[in-house]
Formats: sequence, C-alpha cells, structure tokens
Amino acid sequence: MTGIATVRGERAARVAWARLTEPGDSGVAAQISAVGAEEALHAVGAETTLGQRMAERLAELDVDRDLAIARRLGARLVVPGDAEWPVGLDDLEAPPVCLWVLGGARLSDVTTRSVAVVGARAATGYGVHVAKELGAGLAERGFGVVSGAAYGIDGAAHEGALAVEGVTVAVLACGVDRPYPSGHAGLLRRVQVDGLVISEVPPGSAPTKWRFLSRNRMIATLTQGTVVVEAGLRSGSRNTARLADDHLRVVCAVPGPVSSAVSAGCHELVRGGAILVTDAAEVAEAVGPIGELAPRKEGAGQPGDDLEPNHRIVLAALPTRKPVTTEELARLSGLSSTEVRGALGALDLAGLARRHGEGWRRPPGR
Amino acid sequence: MTGIATVRGERAARVAWARLTEPGDSGVAAQISAVGAEEALHAVGAETTLGQRMAERLAELDVDRDLAIARRLGARLVVPGDAEWPVGLDDLEAPPVCLWVLGGARLSDVTTRSVAVVGARAATGYGVHVAKELGAGLAERGFGVVSGAAYGIDGAAHEGALAVEGVTVAVLACGVDRPYPSGHAGLLRRVQVDGLVISEVPPGSAPTKWRFLSRNRMIATLTQGTVVVEAGLRSGSRNTARLADDHLRVVCAVPGPVSSAVSAGCHELVRGGAILVTDAAEVAEAVGPIGELAPRKEGAGQPGDDLEPNHRIVLAALPTRKPVTTEELARLSGLSSTEVRGALGALDLAGLARRHGEGWRRPPGR
Repeated sequence: MTGIATVRGERAARVAWARLTEPGDSGVAAQISAVGAEEALHAVGAETTLGQRMAERLAELDVDRDLAIARRLGARLVVPGDAEWPVGLDDLEAPPVCLWVLGGARLSDVTTRSVAVVGARAATGYGVHVAKELGAGLAERGFGVVSGAAYGIDGAAHEGALAVEGVTVAVLACGVDRPYPSGHAGLLRRVQVDGLVISEVPPGSAPTKWRFLSRNRMIATLTQGTVVVEAGLRSGSRNTARLADDHLRVVCAVPGPVSSAVSAGCHELVRGGAILVTDAAEVAEAVGPIGELAPRKEGAGQPGDDLEPNHRIVLAALPTRKPVTTEELARLSGLSSTEVRGALGALDLAGLARRHGEGWRRPPGR
Repeated sequence: MTGIATVRGERAARVAWARLTEPGDSGVAAQISAVGAEEALHAVGAETTLGQRMAERLAELDVDRDLAIARRLGARLVVPGDAEWPVGLDDLEAPPVCLWVLGGARLSDVTTRSVAVVGARAATGYGVHVAKELGAGLAERGFGVVSGAAYGIDGAAHEGALAVEGVTVAVLACGVDRPYPSGHAGLLRRVQVDGLVISEVPPGSAPTKWRFLSRNRMIATLTQGTVVVEAGLRSGSRNTARLADDHLRVVCAVPGPVSSAVSAGCHELVRGGAILVTDAAEVAEAVGPIGELAPRKEGAGQPGDDLEPNHRIVLAALPTRKPVTTEELARLSGLSSTEVRGALGALDLAGLARRHGEGWRRPPGR
C-alpha cells in the first residue's frame, strides 16, 4: 500500500504496525511472527480487511516523527529481541509489536522479579491503605511493583513502592507522553525517576476502552503474579487476574468485609482458586522462588503449649489468684490426686505453678 | 469400688460415668465400647489410675438425684442407641457417654441438616452482623444452627436463627441448668423453646477450660460443617474448625479486613484450605447436599456482553454524548469503515447505537 512501501527495517516496521493497528491483534501477531515485521507490513493487501483498516490511518503514519517525538520525550523504543525486552510478554498470543519506555530502570531487569498490584478505581480507604502497604512491602523485598497508574488501588501501589524508594512500573493504555489520569501526572513523573512508564501504543495515542483491556494483558504477563486488592464483581482487575491465570501466573487476592462491594470480586477470586493474602510476606511467598516462606501466623505461644496432656489439664485448672488444694485440683481436673501431685511437681519446675501453704496457684504474670 | 457396685443398668451407668470422669476420655470410651457402660463401670479397679481418679468424686455420685434434677429442669437424658441420639457424635474417638437435653426440638432431627456457626467472643460489630445474617439465612434454608452460646459470634448466630423462628442448638460446657455466660440466660431460655440446649456434663457442673475444649469437639461433629465468622490466631474456634476437618466435615471461614486481628484466624483457615464464604447461600452450597448451588456472583450483565468482537469494539468506542462519524469511529476503533458501518447496523438493531445526522452515539441510558 502507498505510504507503507517506504518503511524500511524491522524497528521502523514495528513502529508503523503500532501506529496503523490496535494492540492485541492476534492476526497481526501471527503474520509478524511468520515473516518478520517489515515483510509482513509490505505484504498487507489493500483489498484485505486488515488493509482496509490500516488505510483509515495511513494519514497518521510517520515513523520518523514518532521516533523523534519519543526521543524528545526521553522515551526509548524497545522491540522483541532487544536486551531490555521483557520476555514475559512473549507468552501472549499477540505480544505488543513494540514498547515505548520512559524512565531510569531497565525493563527486563525490573520485571524478572515483579508483582502486579491492581484493583478498583473506586477503592475504599481500607483498600488504599492495604495497596500502599503491599506496594511498600513488595518493593522492600526486591520486587518490581507493576500497576496501571489508575486512581484508587493502582496509584496507591505505585505510591507505596515509591515511599520506600522501590522500583515501580506504570503500564499505560495511552501514549507515555499523555499522563492519564491527569490527576496522576505528578505520580507518573515520580515513577519514571527510578522506575518506568511504558506503553504499547505510540506517543500521542488516547486511552480507549479497548486499549485498557489490551494493557491489562501486559500487566498480567510482565509479572510473575498478580494481587487484586479490591475489585467489584465486574472489575477490570478480575480480567487482569484471569489473564494472569491463563498465562500460568500466580493470582492472589486480598480479602475484606463481606459487606464491601469492592471486596466481592476478591472473594470470588479466592473462591475460584486464587490465593488469599493478607500482607506482602504472603504475596512474596506465593510469587517468589521456592523457599521464600512467609512466617506462619500462629500467634504468640502460650505457657503450657508443650506440656503433656495431664500437666496441661492441671495447669488449666490452676487459679491465678486464690490458691487451691491438690484435692480441689483433682476434683476440678478429673484426675487422681496422685496425678495432680505429679503434674504440680512438673509445673513447679517449669515455673508455671507456685505453692502457697497447702494450696497451689499460678505465679503472677504467667 | 464402693458406691459404684449399686449402679444398675446401662442408662444409670452412663450417668455415673458422666459424674465420675471428665468428658472426652478415650480410655473410658474404649472400655464402654468393649463391654457396655454398666460392665465397664463395675470392672474399674480401685488401684488403677482411672479408679483413683473416680474415687476423688465418689462422694458426688448419686444417679437418682442427677436424674431427678434433670426431670425437675425438664431436661431429658439421651444416650447412644436412643432414637434422638445424634449419630454424628459417634464419629468421635470418645463420644459423650450421655447427653442432657433441654428444649422442644428433637436433637437427631435438628442435627441431620445443621451447621455450626462459631467465632470470637471479642467479636467486632462487623462480625456480629455477619454471624446474625448467617444464623438467619441458614435457619431460613432449613439448617439447624449449632453454636456455643458464648458472647460475640456464638450468641449472634443463635440470635439470627431465632429472629427468623429457626431452630438453633446451644452446646454448653457446663450443666444445662447453669446459664453460661450469665448474660446469655435470656438467650438460652429463648433457644430452648423451639430449639435445644444440650450438654455432656451433668446438671450442676461448672464450665472449665477442659470442658470447653471437649464441648468444641461436639459442635464440630454434631454438624455437617463449621463456619468460623471471626477468630483470632489462637482462637478456640480454629480448634473447632480443625476438629471439624479431622472428622471430614466442611470448614468455611468468613473473610474480613486484613487489619482486623479477629479476622486473622479466618484468613489463616482459608489459606489452609477452608472455603471462603460471604453469605448463607455459599455456606449452604458448601455444606448442603449436592445440587444446592449458591447463585454465582458475576454482577449484573452489561449491554454488549453477548456481541461479536468487532461490534463490541465499536460499542466501546461509541460516545454517550456528542455523536461521531463512521470515519472517526474507524480511527478510534482501529477497524475499517466498512467494518464500522456493519457493526453500527447491528448495534442500531440491538438498540445500542443511534444515528444523529452524520454521526452516531449511544442512546441515552444504555
């Protein structure tokens, strides 16, 4: 087709593909995969459906301008095969044809050990708090925190990572030059200092519903696991979780009150097999390499936990204030006086029983 | 032994066993199981450990008095083999030797289709609310609601069942004549009108820590499933849940905020394999016979859910306010103008797109 024929080279061809088609098109991906981006581009027939679609956008095609804009922004183009290309994306049926990347980190490094923290825009104070804690805790554990820069959970996850000087990645549904949502322009500027702002659509592109869906599949596959913090029953985050699961990533969800509509999606995820998580350590355990175990939450040990049954029974019957006789303890515990005396001896040695004249009680503070 | 030799008959012997030993003793259970309660009682040697234990309590032994007290209370004695005996208890290694039962329902009937709803005494307002809703919802679905009459979750579960005139069973760690906790005396009176108050320890017995633990194993096995509503990490309710699981009952837990200490035990249960539940329908599905399915929580359908992909893409691109041209839609959607026109025709027919001069938009309210 006119205008396309002049595009030369794989990188330029990928820029052209990104400009002329919508992301996530498996037909396009198959053709590029078969013969390479340049040859596939030149092979598109004007009479085909794809050719007709691309024709609508030919007026916008200017690869050199797209690359110049990116350079001016400080953004770099990353394509499959580049050292910085995040290999997780190759699991997609239709990987991005290219990525525009803005920021000080190296995308392939950050995403090698990374978690997506996503959730509702209309988050509650509870959800925002948990997302910040998770973002901070995961960053402290050396995970890149990947999210979508949306209001609510996404923004809180980025903020949490930034608060501990961690590395976070914002994956946008629009061009990296368009801070979206606009209220997060400042956040996105801070993200790209040590982290990254990335997109598969060219600079200047607006976010559309389709591009949000396509963006979600990137979040799901750039990372080794996705944590949904709050999500309504029809949330885009559940979509991200499903995509993560489809691509054999770990899916975690944070519980909340059953009366909260924005926890309902999380609860459905857990009922469907997602791992319930309550803190960053549990996420790290679920997502990280084997051996990264969260401490078991068994609560503090209580005196007597390791005693033999009879001794524990006597300990349970032993008052903390007014001392009781061994006969009284026998009656209370259902053991014989001989057994009670034996148990009291052991408890005395362990510092768990104290004699007072004819009676026994627990020592103060035990 | 003196005093024991005069006890005659299986029922009387079981009353004596209950008076002379603590519940949950597997040695006692094995002897009764082998030769019957009467013969086993007469066979206890005074020199044995068991004989020594029982000797401490011989002064309290008066089977006729125990039965007379029960009659005066309106309580009945239920022993294994009676028609009212709840067969679930036979799954225990040491089933109760007998039960004191107070109230208008028939224990075997109520427990055939029953759920235990248990949890923290120091429950939150949230937990109390959920426990009431579960108690009511399960009772409405024809489940007996079994709990321990404690403050907090237990009491709320009983209250919920009573509120819908359902049947609820309070399993006490003390005699059925001793309302415990005392603040629930009124509740226990209401429970026994259409439901039941039961105990394995004789009238007059005080609640002890050991008897609470033993009581929990009854709650766990009388029912087909246990729901823990709120529980700290070292809660007795987790113990009940573990016992239910040990005896192949269904274990469910209600989630809550990860910041709530009394939801931490529930979250650990879910992480250990318990079923996360958010309402009575989900409990009924988990516990009830196959086919009792809770409605899936997928949220209300959205317009366009059943459209083919291209039509959905155009619908997503279609503004709700200012109309746009088909060329504009082609550019927005990445489809060809021909595809957009085809999609608009289908959307128009479905009432999802409306023409305005040269432009298109969504009809109001869609």
